[in-house]
Amino acid sequence: MDENKPFDIVHRSLNKNVLIALKDGRFLRGKLIGYDTELNLSLEDAELFSDEIKKKLGVVVIRKNNVLSFTEEDTL
Amino acid sequence: MDENKPFDIVHRSLNKNVLIALKDGRFLRGKLIGYDTELNLSLEDAELFSDEIKKKLGVVVIRKNNVLSFTEEDTL
Amino acid sequence: MDENKPFDIVHRSLNKNVLIALKDGRFLRGKLIGYDTELNLSLEDAELFSDEIKKKLGVVVIRKNNVLSFTEEDTL
Amino acid sequence: MDENKPFDIVHRSLNKNVLIALKDGRFLRGKLIGYDTELNLSLEDAELFSDEIKKKLGVVVIRKNNVLSFTEEDTL
Amino acid sequence: MDENKPFDIVHRSLNKNVLIALKDGRFLRGKLIGYDTELNLSLEDAELFSDEIKKKLGVVVIRKNNVLSFTEEDTL
Amino acid sequence: MDENKPFDIVHRSLNKNVLIALKDGRFLRGKLIGYDTELNLSLEDAELFSDEIKKKLGVVVIRKNNVLSFTEEDTL
Amino acid sequence: MDENKPFDIVHRSLNKNVLIALKDGRFLRGKLIGYDTELNLSLEDAELFSDEIKKKLGVVVIRKNNVLSFTEEDTL
Repeated sequence: MDENKPFDIVHRSLNKNVLIALKDGRFLRGKLIGYDTELNLSLEDAELFSDEIKKKLGVVVIRKNNVLSFTEEDTL
Repeated sequence: MDENKPFDIVHRSLNKNVLIALKDGRFLRGKLIGYDTELNLSLEDAELFSDEIKKKLGVVVIRKNNVLSFTEEDTL
Repeated sequence: MDENKPFDIVHRSLNKNVLIALKDGRFLRGKLIGYDTELNLSLEDAELFSDEIKKKLGVVVIRKNNVLSFTEEDTL
Repeated sequence: MDENKPFDIVHRSLNKNVLIALKDGRFLRGKLIGYDTELNLSLEDAELFSDEIKKKLGVVVIRKNNVLSFTEEDTL
Repeated sequence: MDENKPFDIVHRSLNKNVLIALKDGRFLRGKLIGYDTELNLSLEDAELFSDEIKKKLGVVVIRKNNVLSFTEEDTL
Repeated sequence: MDENKPFDIVHRSLNKNVLIALKDGRFLRGKLIGYDTELNLSLEDAELFSDEIKKKLGVVVIRKNNVLSFTEEDTL
Repeated sequence: MDENKPFDIVHRSLNKNVLIALKDGRFLRGKLIGYDTELNLSLEDAELFSDEIKKKLGVVVIRKNNVLSFTEEDTL
């Protein structure tokens, strides 16, 4: 189990494309280029989207308390 | 009582299918593959769903403060 | 007064049926089989319900910050 | 002033009927039978009500962060 | 500036009528009879009101995290 | 950069008119007469307003967690 | 990875134009002139906007818990 703890999965996802589900129902997609121990995340080529909108955000820092879930796109 | 404390139940559910009720009324279903002492959870083959939507999320990390309840599907 | 402090009442309710009012207006009913010092709760044969819905959840762990109130059904 | 600090008033209300205004606009009424230093409260013969609903809850524990205000009914 | 720090103003308002704006858009009015270092407040002859409702609450304790702002009525 | 850290800007605004954007979409305007290290703020001649309402609040203390942003009116 | 941790990206953005997505769906744009270790931010020539509104805010301090994401406009 150890290698599947939440932070192991985040660490394994570095330099990969990830999909972030936000608490408000929207999603962020981009390449994970950094994180810290509070689970603040850094993405590159990030895009904020929902059914209706799509907005490019470039290099982006996401504050931890907005994140519902985190997923590596390779596993989709 | 000791073996039924909240974390005992989460620990017993490792590698089993679990159903997570989220605060916003949606659900996540998947195989529990990890957790940490803050109750952040790791799922495999996760699916986010409500009455209207169903979205595959693959390997997913869920931040603790989104969780309403946690249940092992075998007990349903 | 001492034996009626909030945690005394939770402790006295072990292995009894309890009714949990959630912050979002819904209720959970089930047998209390465990708790921890943060007031995370473990229920058995749990059921999530509101006026419109009813959903069996089996053995369930409820995160503390979703709880509005806790009541022992014998006292109803 | 000292004897009117918030916790003095809660302590003076033990074994009296109190009215709890909840953050979501509803009210709880009952006899205060216990509290702790976090302002979790224990009520007896509690009733949850709003303009439309009224639901008996018996002996009830209320988690602190749902409370808007606390009042002793004798002072109404 | 020192005598105008937020807690200086609360302290100066003891035994005066105050108006509390709540986060949910409602107001509480009453005589400030106590407070603690967390900014929990005690009011006497308190009244909860909005455009539509008005409800007497007598001696009341208000939990800190419901307060938007605090004002001494003499300064209105 | 040092003299532009968030607290430097708040300190520089003492005795000046400031505009506070609140989280709920409303605004507060007034003269900043005090603050503490938690970013609780004291205003004089404060006014709470939105598109539809305008309410004088006199000397007012604002709890930190209601503040979205803080701006010195001279810089507008 | 180290130079892409969330705070590295914020630090690199000093004196550059940044776009702040707020939790409530609105955006702030301006020149980043300061920040602190809690991720409170100072902007110059800030503008608060959504689809419908646009409001100049001049020099502005943003409290950390309103921020959804932070992006350097050069990377858009």
